[in-house]
Amino acid sequence: MITLYHCVSARSFRPLWALEELGLPYELKMLPFPPRVRAREYLQLNPLGTIPLMVDGDTRMTESAAIGHYLCTKYGPSPLAVASHEEGFGAYLNYLHFGEATLTFPQTLVLRYERFEPPERRQPQVAQDYAKWFLARLRGPEGVLASSEYLAAGRFTCADISVGYALMLAELIGLAPQFPPNVAAYWERLRTREGYLKAMAAQDAAARAQGVAPEPATVQPWP
Amino acid sequence: MITLYHCVSARSFRPLWALEELGLPYELKMLPFPPRVRAREYLQLNPLGTIPLMVDGDTRMTESAAIGHYLCTKYGPSPLAVASHEEGFGAYLNYLHFGEATLTFPQTLVLRYERFEPPERRQPQVAQDYAKWFLARLRGPEGVLASSEYLAAGRFTCADISVGYALMLAELIGLAPQFPPNVAAYWERLRTREGYLKAMAAQDAAARAQGVAPEPATVQPWP
Repeated sequence: MITLYHCVSARSFRPLWALEELGLPYELKMLPFPPRVRAREYLQLNPLGTIPLMVDGDTRMTESAAIGHYLCTKYGPSPLAVASHEEGFGAYLNYLHFGEATLTFPQTLVLRYERFEPPERRQPQVAQDYAKWFLARLRGPEGVLASSEYLAAGRFTCADISVGYALMLAELIGLAPQFPPNVAAYWERLRTREGYLKAMAAQDAAARAQGVAPEPATVQPWP
Repeated sequence: MITLYHCVSARSFRPLWALEELGLPYELKMLPFPPRVRAREYLQLNPLGTIPLMVDGDTRMTESAAIGHYLCTKYGPSPLAVASHEEGFGAYLNYLHFGEATLTFPQTLVLRYERFEPPERRQPQVAQDYAKWFLARLRGPEGVLASSEYLAAGRFTCADISVGYALMLAELIGLAPQFPPNVAAYWERLRTREGYLKAMAAQDAAARAQGVAPEPATVQPWP
């Protein structure tokens, strides 16, 4: 059985979304955010204290974009992965990484220095620098999406889950009104997918059942 | 022919290292750092202005960790990739992503707010926050390296190239003396590999031949 440790609307939403798209059975363990402060026993399982942690037998993974690719390859073949002989293989790998390394990390700076730090440590300049940085990087997907509904191989893949989560986070922190038009239309397609809606419903049900606040981690008060 | 656009010791060192480990033919195009300021014509090729850009026929990629995996899969099979039926597949993917998303991005904040920004925009607190953040995340590899020479499947792979570049950058910006012991020994193994030394020699020769300063981008004066 695959076990996924998750905080509401945190990066661990990527593997949750992939699990729902794949229709795989899994156990969802909800944690309050941030677990390294509010669920210190979690450090026994993941000494980094980061979310997600996915456990599948002897395999333990903490990188959300990597877990999506792992699941759809290990439990494939699935159209969610692009194979090395397909034309879109490079674009698939590129956007799988891009969604996290290029589009998500900058947003964590906006969150940290605009919301999570105590007032005397907030850094509006840094938050602005990285909001701008994030929006400038959307030029990449904006170009691809001018002629394609998805980022790689002309179909929905884990690369879209990776970038899609970055767009979901941008909506939560208020950057979505600045999406360029093709990205805005793409985000609308992604957020109305059955797999996305099922993942949303699964996290909401699990949060309620496990006594964790069902609001996104990004809007929960920081301790 | 594979073409790689590269700045001395920038993230594009990852695909350069992978190319040398694989022994593939390639063309190395050197750019002054940062290209979006000092080589504005590069924006025609990569509108994001980021480094690397790798062009292989119709495939164009900008994510350095993804390119390594692309090369060793597309031009494999190679021991540099871990296949999905191997035991270390999850660890391989995890550290491939971790090297960039978790270990490199935080260091770019140290660089930016300690060195690159003009004095009135420097942010020593942010630089310290992310130096600490980077060092704390080394706990992951430190644990794995207690019982293994490499991060996945018991052999040198592209996951080591991904994490290895983050350690190279840490050395350049002065964080290496704080590496925990297993990471320090691992970095010593990586930086003395033939493939690493060949990549170093290749960038040095190309920089000189193409009239680009051979010093690492991280120590070149910011315009």
